[in-house]
Amino acid sequence: MDLIDNTPGRASYHSPMSEPASSLAAGSVGPGSVGPGSVGTVETQYLDLPEPVRLDCGRKLHPVRVAYETYGTLSPRRDNVILVCHALSGDAHAAGFAQTPPEESTRDGFGAEDRDGTARKGLGWWDGMIGPGKAFDTDRFYVVSTNLLGGCRGTTGPSSTDPATGRPYGSDFPVITVADMVRTERAFLDVLGIERLAAVAGGSLGGMQALEWAVSYPGQVDAIIPIASTHALHPQGVAWNAIARESILRDPDWQGGHYYGSGRSPDAGMGVGRMVGHITYLSAQALEGKFGRRLQFADDLRYTIAEPEFEVESYLRHQADSFVKRFDANTYLYTSRALTYFDLAREHGGGSLAQAVRDVSARTLLIAFSSDWLYPPSASRDIAAALDALGKPVECQVIEAPYGHDCFLLEEARQIPIIRSFLAEGPAGE
Amino acid sequence: MDLIDNTPGRASYHSPMSEPASSLAAGSVGPGSVGPGSVGTVETQYLDLPEPVRLDCGRKLHPVRVAYETYGTLSPRRDNVILVCHALSGDAHAAGFAQTPPEESTRDGFGAEDRDGTARKGLGWWDGMIGPGKAFDTDRFYVVSTNLLGGCRGTTGPSSTDPATGRPYGSDFPVITVADMVRTERAFLDVLGIERLAAVAGGSLGGMQALEWAVSYPGQVDAIIPIASTHALHPQGVAWNAIARESILRDPDWQGGHYYGSGRSPDAGMGVGRMVGHITYLSAQALEGKFGRRLQFADDLRYTIAEPEFEVESYLRHQADSFVKRFDANTYLYTSRALTYFDLAREHGGGSLAQAVRDVSARTLLIAFSSDWLYPPSASRDIAAALDALGKPVECQVIEAPYGHDCFLLEEARQIPIIRSFLAEGPAGE
Repeated sequence: MDLIDNTPGRASYHSPMSEPASSLAAGSVGPGSVGPGSVGTVETQYLDLPEPVRLDCGRKLHPVRVAYETYGTLSPRRDNVILVCHALSGDAHAAGFAQTPPEESTRDGFGAEDRDGTARKGLGWWDGMIGPGKAFDTDRFYVVSTNLLGGCRGTTGPSSTDPATGRPYGSDFPVITVADMVRTERAFLDVLGIERLAAVAGGSLGGMQALEWAVSYPGQVDAIIPIASTHALHPQGVAWNAIARESILRDPDWQGGHYYGSGRSPDAGMGVGRMVGHITYLSAQALEGKFGRRLQFADDLRYTIAEPEFEVESYLRHQADSFVKRFDANTYLYTSRALTYFDLAREHGGGSLAQAVRDVSARTLLIAFSSDWLYPPSASRDIAAALDALGKPVECQVIEAPYGHDCFLLEEARQIPIIRSFLAEGPAGE
Repeated sequence: MDLIDNTPGRASYHSPMSEPASSLAAGSVGPGSVGPGSVGTVETQYLDLPEPVRLDCGRKLHPVRVAYETYGTLSPRRDNVILVCHALSGDAHAAGFAQTPPEESTRDGFGAEDRDGTARKGLGWWDGMIGPGKAFDTDRFYVVSTNLLGGCRGTTGPSSTDPATGRPYGSDFPVITVADMVRTERAFLDVLGIERLAAVAGGSLGGMQALEWAVSYPGQVDAIIPIASTHALHPQGVAWNAIARESILRDPDWQGGHYYGSGRSPDAGMGVGRMVGHITYLSAQALEGKFGRRLQFADDLRYTIAEPEFEVESYLRHQADSFVKRFDANTYLYTSRALTYFDLAREHGGGSLAQAVRDVSARTLLIAFSSDWLYPPSASRDIAAALDALGKPVECQVIEAPYGHDCFLLEEARQIPIIRSFLAEGPAGE
């Protein structure tokens, strides 16, 4: 049974084997506002995994639903699949226009929406990279994007119903790891009948998933493209993420993690956590250029203790308030913990990165950005050096750009030729 | 009337003209644990200013009490006075052992206590710099240290009683500026009969006060020593401070700023704010060296969502919990706002730093630290360049050291010869 709708020229979708209870209608390409190189209008799909997912913590999770979108056409040999993995605050809607645009754009995940001043409501978070003629060329590749395990945008996470109680898991949701996310993606692709991946790509936490794929399923991945990512977050990054989580945990509205249905949620704490995140995603230079020390109300200070007067303060409040409307605090906690604790060397190499990557067979393209101080180029270089020392095919590109970690969403034009060239070398690239 | 007890060999103190209602007994040097170069045991004194303090916001503040300590002996000509100004979380107890040690040491203001592993309970926050033979040599200088305006360690601040209501000011306390702090210090020294200062010195916010002194009272300061400081915090520093304040403001226990006497205070929010501060005071390299990615419980992950497993996470919690026991959240808000909004060029030069420092007559020694990313060397160099272009005597020393902003408390041994040499050149130095 061919589960894939691969009608040419459409944003294809998958009709899940087990129809989820609340599954939306099958997606379709809308007529309207489709720009050049766009995959068109897309609707997120849902699939329930047939088996429990075994987790690193020892627990098994069931049921697990996966939210996903696909772009392009699956080849008859099913050898042109690229899995795209999102970062902390993303979702399955990576490209095209959402059939049902959310109240709040997810494109602002790293401040990109504000930066270029474009209204991007309903546009996928990596739309500049995925589509006909783009980095992940949907004329050649079948691109699959899922919401990660623990998410709050359709995939099972802390806000999902715990079958043991009939109520949302809350903090009873098991602690998950990047390996658990990848194991879920593997199980999801199994249902779709996809055995091998032409590539796994993603930025930040998405890049960690790509690395985990290459290490955990070495025979099943032809190439990986970890962008602005790392094999293990450095201690300062550990600290920033810990502070963001603390801010949620210390909000009394968190209520021990069981806030669903109470009418209160830890928006205040998650807002502060999001502010911390935002500043770590930007370089000091970018903040200087974007805001400087400009005041909102000319040069007359108003001397209020609770109201911000600097533009950057007002911007942070806006970002926090907008984020809490579209994101779940427990998903933030679980996802932040997963990316903070991800440690390829510890988990797979007894502390040695060289040992951890010994079985990798995927060709590897690492992209990093000079001004990214949260996921600095040195981490990508470390990975490249470990692979290279073992004679494995690896390419590491450091792009000089001023916007910090945000670059992976903002510097699309400079990544596209690098990625296209890299993918052209692969077996599915011809 | 000579108000100063200048008995040689004692930590001198001042008996205020107007005896404050709750003033402690006059200080004295205790017998016990006085190490070499120590000023001995000291008790904080209190003085009520006779006149209201005029504030930048347009309001007048009265009454104003100032908590202070003095070390060394005032010269008969009263020309050997050095004013030491503290940073955000400090107090008047800069040197020696406190007669009544606080429950929580203030020495840990920037993590110094934990760093060197020494028990420093009751020791002044800059004890390594102030004393016989030290940088601020009490054999030659009469060192005065006050708790700043808005403080919570004896000087009038948001937790003081508002005479209009009989209750603590809370957020009715006027918004204060660095210039207001300096105006208060000026009025305080007037009461002590001290017209001129041989020097004003301080780190971070303390350095801002030194700069403000040189600009606001150019004929009354012979020298200033701003350390790890700036003429205007860069936008990323603005953002970090804004986030720390937001964390307090969003804590429901802040209660609009009127939490005193309610049995609840915004400890959770201030704790998170303090964590943010801590990480900005340390360099990434220092965090790497001190904590790395070490786990607390060997290599077995416990997979809990609310309990930290990295050592650095546990350290941050400890620092936050210890800080909230000794500090007032409103003072944090007001002081953070003052240092964030301090802008020498905007306030005194119509946007031009050169214009702002045109009347400075004090000799200037700037000290900065290579790894300080919150108050980077570039800010000190900017100030030095502005002064130098006007032909004013200025020296800028950048010390290569890895600990970030913390260096100003940690790298005492390398600052001492620089400061001693600089002060030896002054008129009071012989």
